[in-house]
Amino acid sequence: MALISIIENFEPRNNAEFLSTAQELLPQLYHKKINAVAIDGKGTTGLKVGDYVRFDLGSHYVGHLSIRVSSKGSHPDAPAFIKIRMAEILKEFEENVDEYNGWISPGWFQQEWIHIDQIPQTITLPRRYAMRYVQIEILATSAKYSLNIDEVLCDAESAVQIDDKLIPVQTEDTEMKKIDVVGLRTLQNCMQEVFEDGPKRDRRLWLGDLRLQAKVNYLTFHNTDLVKRCLYLFAGSTFLDGRVGAAVFTDNRVEVDDTYLGDYALFFISVLYDYYKETKDKTTLKDLYKTAWKQVELVMQFVDERGVVRDTDCFIDWCDGLDKQAAFQGVLIYCIRQMTELAEIMNDIKQEYCLKEILNRLLKGARNCLYDESTGLFVSGPEHQISTASQVWMVLAGVFDRDKNRTILKRIREKGLPYKMVTPYMVHHYTEALCVCGEYEEAGNVIRDYWGTMVLLGADTFWECFNPDEPDESPYGGTMANSYCHAWSCTPSMLLRIYPLLQ
Amino acid sequence: MALISIIENFEPRNNAEFLSTAQELLPQLYHKKINAVAIDGKGTTGLKVGDYVRFDLGSHYVGHLSIRVSSKGSHPDAPAFIKIRMAEILKEFEENVDEYNGWISPGWFQQEWIHIDQIPQTITLPRRYAMRYVQIEILATSAKYSLNIDEVLCDAESAVQIDDKLIPVQTEDTEMKKIDVVGLRTLQNCMQEVFEDGPKRDRRLWLGDLRLQAKVNYLTFHNTDLVKRCLYLFAGSTFLDGRVGAAVFTDNRVEVDDTYLGDYALFFISVLYDYYKETKDKTTLKDLYKTAWKQVELVMQFVDERGVVRDTDCFIDWCDGLDKQAAFQGVLIYCIRQMTELAEIMNDIKQEYCLKEILNRLLKGARNCLYDESTGLFVSGPEHQISTASQVWMVLAGVFDRDKNRTILKRIREKGLPYKMVTPYMVHHYTEALCVCGEYEEAGNVIRDYWGTMVLLGADTFWECFNPDEPDESPYGGTMANSYCHAWSCTPSMLLRIYPLLQ
Repeated sequence: MALISIIENFEPRNNAEFLSTAQELLPQLYHKKINAVAIDGKGTTGLKVGDYVRFDLGSHYVGHLSIRVSSKGSHPDAPAFIKIRMAEILKEFEENVDEYNGWISPGWFQQEWIHIDQIPQTITLPRRYAMRYVQIEILATSAKYSLNIDEVLCDAESAVQIDDKLIPVQTEDTEMKKIDVVGLRTLQNCMQEVFEDGPKRDRRLWLGDLRLQAKVNYLTFHNTDLVKRCLYLFAGSTFLDGRVGAAVFTDNRVEVDDTYLGDYALFFISVLYDYYKETKDKTTLKDLYKTAWKQVELVMQFVDERGVVRDTDCFIDWCDGLDKQAAFQGVLIYCIRQMTELAEIMNDIKQEYCLKEILNRLLKGARNCLYDESTGLFVSGPEHQISTASQVWMVLAGVFDRDKNRTILKRIREKGLPYKMVTPYMVHHYTEALCVCGEYEEAGNVIRDYWGTMVLLGADTFWECFNPDEPDESPYGGTMANSYCHAWSCTPSMLLRIYPLLQ
Repeated sequence: MALISIIENFEPRNNAEFLSTAQELLPQLYHKKINAVAIDGKGTTGLKVGDYVRFDLGSHYVGHLSIRVSSKGSHPDAPAFIKIRMAEILKEFEENVDEYNGWISPGWFQQEWIHIDQIPQTITLPRRYAMRYVQIEILATSAKYSLNIDEVLCDAESAVQIDDKLIPVQTEDTEMKKIDVVGLRTLQNCMQEVFEDGPKRDRRLWLGDLRLQAKVNYLTFHNTDLVKRCLYLFAGSTFLDGRVGAAVFTDNRVEVDDTYLGDYALFFISVLYDYYKETKDKTTLKDLYKTAWKQVELVMQFVDERGVVRDTDCFIDWCDGLDKQAAFQGVLIYCIRQMTELAEIMNDIKQEYCLKEILNRLLKGARNCLYDESTGLFVSGPEHQISTASQVWMVLAGVFDRDKNRTILKRIREKGLPYKMVTPYMVHHYTEALCVCGEYEEAGNVIRDYWGTMVLLGADTFWECFNPDEPDESPYGGTMANSYCHAWSCTPSMLLRIYPLLQ
């Protein structure tokens, strides 16, 4: 995900000890070499100005590219000049990036202009790309020679042993099996030196994405150190007041993004909780417990006397016009439950007591002020907006019991799931809500209809955004800015493993 | 210079021993760091998409570029994308290289598109450029940050200690002094791992250019090893029949260019002759004597029974419509004289005798068949064309005595110097011809009018092509393909030292 907010004179608070722990956990990446195959049938030799060749790696990979070129004709008497484009899906080549006018930086478009002074030569591009396809266009040779492209080689990298760990869930359902493998590949390709949201764009550690990645990872690749590293990175660079940022930069210096999102900040608790449940690593819990608690303290400033959260910055989904109050109340309750359990584990009796008080207040607020008895649905904001997101998060928060939750989801379904979910991130939470209510058949249908359709459309990895009714929709003002391998979309691989009845 | 001719299945003949000698003579280049200064006054900080800044190195240099960038605003959340152009003269920035339609490869245009993933960073561009000016244009940042360009640094390189050796000729004439320094800088910047014709384009060892460079070098920087290296390169990779090529590639493997030019091939003799005269290095002479003789033998096939050369491929000048027979006859006589002297030095009596026979035949041919008594001028080709080039080379060849030569030059001047000389290379030979006839005042005027005008137009180094009447003329279909530092134009620095009366 990517958001714009500019804070003047932003200053982070860094914790050297935490950052040093994170640094020690920097993974050695696995590598795999993949030879790309030319797919146009136009040949790869004797190429002159205007010619181009497209290559296919066979699937989506993240890594570096090297290109071996030679020449035909006389000894090259001028540099060759080529333009290289890397694409996650073939459609990207049909798009003219010069026409892009959205708010995403065109700096993300995967394209390079390269002069080749010495021929033959193997050019190794210094940058990393997310790609299945490579297009090489000849911009200049000379009258005396033409160019041959003898090899296009991808040096793929991941914190996971590449391709070897894409072991599908045990099921007879071949469709679900396919969906699962695409999910696994998505996660594999996003697991780099941190859990990245998307390896093409933003290539960054976002907390909301991390939470889902970590959960899938525990059931599949099981790299717990990478989760630990990411937790220390978030705790290692925060806002001055202790808020955890929505994302952390790790490019050349670790620094918290100056974007704050309330739900993402609270998910620090959730990631720590899940990590402890998976590892029983009490040292890490002790180190990071205070950072987790701080997130509660800071958000509680925005809870009124009725126990209802006033609107604060949060993400929930990209959906236009969505009022986020109720969904955020759900996220808060969800995280307070986990924080309470962490306090119990830490034997922090005072805090545990306090958290239980908070939880009761918030549950009361949700039930009394955000639940509308007449419709049997949660409402949000001054306009009492009824949205899918509100119901989903109140269900996941366990504001009511399983039966009532199931009824709520049924009612919102009957209303046509208003405020259409636009990201796999939100669709995941809906599907998970169905699962926790035991609505496995419905959940399975969602997975088939949503993620299955991406697979039918040829996805090697799951996409950042997907609207089955309008596949060309983009929150970024153009699909060319979309990321076609996005971690928050890999969750079927978790759901299929937790809930075998889904299959 | 650059010419197009494509030979199918061209095969060079390489002499491993000669090439190994050449390799041993590979010079260690001198380096000098030059900080570029921003010249637009628009500032170099907070740059957004569409902004550009121009920098000035203060003079023309050849070398590598590094650019230090930082950011303003939030932590960069997307790669910066910049376009960099390097120019020898400021006018190049006003030209749209996309509109270039000539036969020179656009691969030569000095422009790069660079993504910067980590900011701050010092980007070091891997390629070498010939430049005084650098333009950096911002193609992308993001909504969250803008770019600062903190430093643009050139790591200049040359086989000559940079700038320290630009010691002007002793004279009171400040104009000539200026011309001389521009000449010296031209040569300095073309002296790299070989004597290059032009460091922007073609960056290659051409024999015709080498001859003039070596002569200026003896009187100035005096790097005789670099001349020796170049001689061994030419002898080390020839055509299968022993012809020396017009140029040798030294990019990643030494290989003779498949372009043959009769005058350039003969100049192998001339370069070897000048080198021996300067160094008395008999070992080299012995090694390369056979290669030199071979060039005579091969050209003599094209001399008819009257002692007149039939037209063969040669360069002479870029001038359109120029008939090159007479000028080539002049070059041949000029080189046979030098070859005869080399045979004498080698004590090769038989060959010396043979060469003297040849010389007499050629002189007779020139006087009887190419000199027109009625006009008192040399004529060339079936149409009896009267051109400046023909007179110049016949004078340099010493076909007649000094007085008659002077008269010939006077007559062609009175005719308005027909077949206008378009390159400093040809203008040099005209000026030299004036000098050898003692026409110092006229020669001085040519230097002032021709090279002096380039200096007045702001030249830091002398240009490959220059027509004072039409400064925008180019034999390459556009000035943007011109080279503004070209070795064959540096010869005033030689003439001013040989002929002090010029000043």
